[in-house]
Amino acid sequence: MADAPSALPPVAIIMGSQSDWATMRCAAEVLDALQVRHTARIISAHRTPDRLHQFGKTAHEQGFRVIVAGAGGAAHLPGMVAALTHLPVLGVPVQSRALSGLDSLLSIVQMPAGIPTGTLAIGPAGATNAGLLAASILALGDPALAERLIAWRTAQTDRVAEQPVDESAA
Amino acid sequence: MADAPSALPPVAIIMGSQSDWATMRCAAEVLDALQVRHTARIISAHRTPDRLHQFGKTAHEQGFRVIVAGAGGAAHLPGMVAALTHLPVLGVPVQSRALSGLDSLLSIVQMPAGIPTGTLAIGPAGATNAGLLAASILALGDPALAERLIAWRTAQTDRVAEQPVDESAA
Amino acid sequence: MADAPSALPPVAIIMGSQSDWATMRCAAEVLDALQVRHTARIISAHRTPDRLHQFGKTAHEQGFRVIVAGAGGAAHLPGMVAALTHLPVLGVPVQSRALSGLDSLLSIVQMPAGIPTGTLAIGPAGATNAGLLAASILALGDPALAERLIAWRTAQTDRVAEQPVDESAA
Amino acid sequence: MADAPSALPPVAIIMGSQSDWATMRCAAEVLDALQVRHTARIISAHRTPDRLHQFGKTAHEQGFRVIVAGAGGAAHLPGMVAALTHLPVLGVPVQSRALSGLDSLLSIVQMPAGIPTGTLAIGPAGATNAGLLAASILALGDPALAERLIAWRTAQTDRVAEQPVDESAA
Amino acid sequence: MADAPSALPPVAIIMGSQSDWATMRCAAEVLDALQVRHTARIISAHRTPDRLHQFGKTAHEQGFRVIVAGAGGAAHLPGMVAALTHLPVLGVPVQSRALSGLDSLLSIVQMPAGIPTGTLAIGPAGATNAGLLAASILALGDPALAERLIAWRTAQTDRVAEQPVDESAA
Amino acid sequence: MADAPSALPPVAIIMGSQSDWATMRCAAEVLDALQVRHTARIISAHRTPDRLHQFGKTAHEQGFRVIVAGAGGAAHLPGMVAALTHLPVLGVPVQSRALSGLDSLLSIVQMPAGIPTGTLAIGPAGATNAGLLAASILALGDPALAERLIAWRTAQTDRVAEQPVDESAA
Amino acid sequence: MADAPSALPPVAIIMGSQSDWATMRCAAEVLDALQVRHTARIISAHRTPDRLHQFGKTAHEQGFRVIVAGAGGAAHLPGMVAALTHLPVLGVPVQSRALSGLDSLLSIVQMPAGIPTGTLAIGPAGATNAGLLAASILALGDPALAERLIAWRTAQTDRVAEQPVDESAA
Amino acid sequence: MADAPSALPPVAIIMGSQSDWATMRCAAEVLDALQVRHTARIISAHRTPDRLHQFGKTAHEQGFRVIVAGAGGAAHLPGMVAALTHLPVLGVPVQSRALSGLDSLLSIVQMPAGIPTGTLAIGPAGATNAGLLAASILALGDPALAERLIAWRTAQTDRVAEQPVDESAA
Repeated sequence: MADAPSALPPVAIIMGSQSDWATMRCAAEVLDALQVRHTARIISAHRTPDRLHQFGKTAHEQGFRVIVAGAGGAAHLPGMVAALTHLPVLGVPVQSRALSGLDSLLSIVQMPAGIPTGTLAIGPAGATNAGLLAASILALGDPALAERLIAWRTAQTDRVAEQPVDESAA
Repeated sequence: MADAPSALPPVAIIMGSQSDWATMRCAAEVLDALQVRHTARIISAHRTPDRLHQFGKTAHEQGFRVIVAGAGGAAHLPGMVAALTHLPVLGVPVQSRALSGLDSLLSIVQMPAGIPTGTLAIGPAGATNAGLLAASILALGDPALAERLIAWRTAQTDRVAEQPVDESAA
Repeated sequence: MADAPSALPPVAIIMGSQSDWATMRCAAEVLDALQVRHTARIISAHRTPDRLHQFGKTAHEQGFRVIVAGAGGAAHLPGMVAALTHLPVLGVPVQSRALSGLDSLLSIVQMPAGIPTGTLAIGPAGATNAGLLAASILALGDPALAERLIAWRTAQTDRVAEQPVDESAA
Repeated sequence: MADAPSALPPVAIIMGSQSDWATMRCAAEVLDALQVRHTARIISAHRTPDRLHQFGKTAHEQGFRVIVAGAGGAAHLPGMVAALTHLPVLGVPVQSRALSGLDSLLSIVQMPAGIPTGTLAIGPAGATNAGLLAASILALGDPALAERLIAWRTAQTDRVAEQPVDESAA
Repeated sequence: MADAPSALPPVAIIMGSQSDWATMRCAAEVLDALQVRHTARIISAHRTPDRLHQFGKTAHEQGFRVIVAGAGGAAHLPGMVAALTHLPVLGVPVQSRALSGLDSLLSIVQMPAGIPTGTLAIGPAGATNAGLLAASILALGDPALAERLIAWRTAQTDRVAEQPVDESAA
Repeated sequence: MADAPSALPPVAIIMGSQSDWATMRCAAEVLDALQVRHTARIISAHRTPDRLHQFGKTAHEQGFRVIVAGAGGAAHLPGMVAALTHLPVLGVPVQSRALSGLDSLLSIVQMPAGIPTGTLAIGPAGATNAGLLAASILALGDPALAERLIAWRTAQTDRVAEQPVDESAA
Repeated sequence: MADAPSALPPVAIIMGSQSDWATMRCAAEVLDALQVRHTARIISAHRTPDRLHQFGKTAHEQGFRVIVAGAGGAAHLPGMVAALTHLPVLGVPVQSRALSGLDSLLSIVQMPAGIPTGTLAIGPAGATNAGLLAASILALGDPALAERLIAWRTAQTDRVAEQPVDESAA
Repeated sequence: MADAPSALPPVAIIMGSQSDWATMRCAAEVLDALQVRHTARIISAHRTPDRLHQFGKTAHEQGFRVIVAGAGGAAHLPGMVAALTHLPVLGVPVQSRALSGLDSLLSIVQMPAGIPTGTLAIGPAGATNAGLLAASILALGDPALAERLIAWRTAQTDRVAEQPVDESAA
């Protein structure tokens, strides 16, 4: 499962529009921190259905191993990609304007039996976690990545202070 | 806009699974009552994405004029068909088990700007109304249908009793 | 179904109050882009019920073909107009202050069997889509409009970039 | 404000359909218990808009003093009657099938400034309370009714047992 | 039912805290416009339960005829006053910080059978409407007030413009 | 803090109506299992406000130490008792018919700063847990009870099987 | 149950992250006002699970008597501490970004039978009330604290003005 | 990444209680169909926190590669296991009684940045999909499993009928 340095990136981060990038870049950042190569593309399920179809059908043969898909509102992108590939698809509900992402969340997570999307939290935290979950999946076949992931987790734990400080007092 | 007797039916009623038919048949029944020809097909956005793509891409050239699409849960069918055709698409949220169709409703109605789905109520009432709205759209170009629709509406009004009766007393 | 240049506009955009115009103008703008004539009127179901009754009863004979109705909160305008005409009525839930438009959405979409309103998304996206759906309905009888609509959709697809850009880096 | 025995009943109980009567009869029953005359009528905002308009416009001159209106789903009846009369209108959200009456509640209670509906609880409890609130309103001008209402309330208080009993043990 | 000029005001506007006044003053303002005398008091169901008990028990003998009660969050004030008096009680859900007044609304409207509160919309619109509904109740026994109320309603209708204007263009 | 055998019971279980007992008896049962004496009373905040006032004002002097209060819908009992006593009050949201207890939960938990109610889960699980939390509070001053509570918790842990069994196969 | 001056503080205020302190300091402040000693610690159920396990297992022997735990989103801290100790645990749902704390509330309050958390309101009011409830629990064994608590409550009552003032007029 | 026949099963299906098995067995069934070995264990985050801690800490060294965790209500199991291991954790919200699994869903999916859980739909469909997603993850390192998964998906597609049938007519 190891990726040779010249190989295509194993993680595709796709999103419905440019505006989703403010959220989805958190996935890219944590993958960077873990040295997992990735690419980001805009694929709108609604405005570019052919691009979606083409991407989903060929994602496996292009060499992608995990797909992280973010969308908001009637967020069909994660589920529709999952319908087109057997690769693991992780969905990130982008916070929507009127309903705060509750619509995004339900549109992504409530998939029928047969086509799974592993859904993360609404917003940037969910994007970060999609990156981490993608890394944990790839780490199953990549011991060096597993070590980096464990180190990242340990560092995260170590950063938690013992006591709160009064920030307003600063 | 008149349909010759030999023409293909102008309304396609599509749904994600056999279980949705209990809801969607209400659309078929009201179209029957209005003498609007229609056909019903199962197209699962998730389990048959190629069938979806094929249907959406060719719906116009097949001669369909209005598409009524019902789905439940992460209900992607109406929006994805709307992404593939410029024909009017009407969405029916099928009542789901855990969340009573709130997930279906939000997944269908909260479409981004650019790709509309005209959404009806959750459940059988929504399916009936999708049939009626389809008929009202076709009636714009079919005066005879307009007359039938007006007569149907008048009959509906006439059936409303003046006073409630104690049904339990019967 | 073609509208002669001198004919009345085929689309009426109605709304409950001046404040809804900030949302509903998105319907007008997309209809302008598609060269579909339209008129905008304020009709408050609650404050001007006679105007509502008059409008609904005469909308057909005035020559309107599709009605786009926006309202917020206990949003009764779309459903009440639909009760008064057999023309297709499209409803736009305007985002409300306390409940973010969830009240508007449910008040518009949950119509009983017999009187349909085709409901779009909450807020400006819904208004844009109501304009597009109205155009797609009129395009059934107007091949030139169908061509303009298809071109609009193609242009929309073409505008979707392949990759996200870091806007904050600009 | 006293009603002579021969006068028309002061309370109109209106509802959108026969099926609402199972809920709304609770209003009638408590008014009976308080000896407040009333009449029940079916007025569908959507299926009989003319009947609605006629009723609302003439409710005052017909001699009604308080209107109790029940409806479910996109429940427009209470608000639309309130738009047509300056009489007090009390709204009862009937429990709906998919959304349990949350849609009914929001459609009735979230009225814009200018047209009030006094809204009660979802379902039969709300109907009973609409009857009680109507009685309390009429009691302002009818001391004998006020006495009956106070007695009814006292009896209600007296019926509350001190301790729960194990009903399953019976 | 007429109030002599020297009588106590017929409407009590009560609220749980000073912060609710920003909402509840809308009730006072519309009552002022209709020349209905009123008084405003802070009565916290939770922080001043004795004041609440005292007020509720004596409201009738103090001469109040309608009580308008506003509260937010776990909004117990309207229901608890209604438990203590047979006068009509109108409840206004004040918009809360975290849940936007949905908690306030449900706490006020979902009263059990036996103790009604007529509930208005969340926030300032609801407060205005509580004032209007109080006026419509008092108008049943005060023809002059009825005339003022009808005039107010007519003026409101007359203020609704025919067409929206582009405010941003000003 | 020990209760002599002849002392009054330290826990009062109060509820709004007989129908709440089906839920609240779970609190009594777990207190029985822990040998914590208790009494159960019906106190309706709305139908018996004087009983509520009397109970709340005298609960401390009657010797109660913890109050467990259950109610449904516009569930005012826990918060109103908390307003009348400085004793710890634990609230149990009883599952309501239309809104499944979401109204009960918000009415109990969303108390303003100054008057706390410690709220448990909706329904029987919440009642059981109210009994357990009351016991844990009393155990702070009663070492023997602390031992019984710890034993109860240990037994609960020990009852959890290692693996699920197919119950339908039996 | 009295705490000697040299004893460890009886109340532990724990929270999932530094950012929760803005909310949870309200618990500390009211405990300060009541002269109840307390300590504040950051314990992340997710980032520091060992610290959580260690804290929960030893909280009793460390001398803590009541634990106040605040967390947001998937707020597991209160329930997981409650799983590890038989001490009373009070939970504070911190307002989350996307869902305004509804997720925090449900994650804390909907505990299964057997492991209680006494849950307070979402946000700072809930934190204040957690401090007050902790004090009322400790006051059962500390008459001097009971007196201070009663005095605090009386002062709170006395601060409620009789009438609202127009703050905007100042 | 291939599992030798003698190896420990790669998938652990864990759940909070026996009652969750009715849902979680769907995960086991689809893994059986795909010939992916698995084991099922009851681990209650609340009633057996030590078992949880022990399991989470040793899951990796025990040889598990993917963990499927189901829980209902305040569903802390998936997130707490994810806090204790770097393995991929998939969460299944079990449908709860009062809130239909909305509480379960939010408790599982709304994890803070740093600790991901890939969440599936509420109820049995979610459990089936957790099994499928686990298989798709393992298939990244197991070409034979990938083939079986693709075949399973193809068969699923082939089973979708073209047209609905009237089941009630049978």
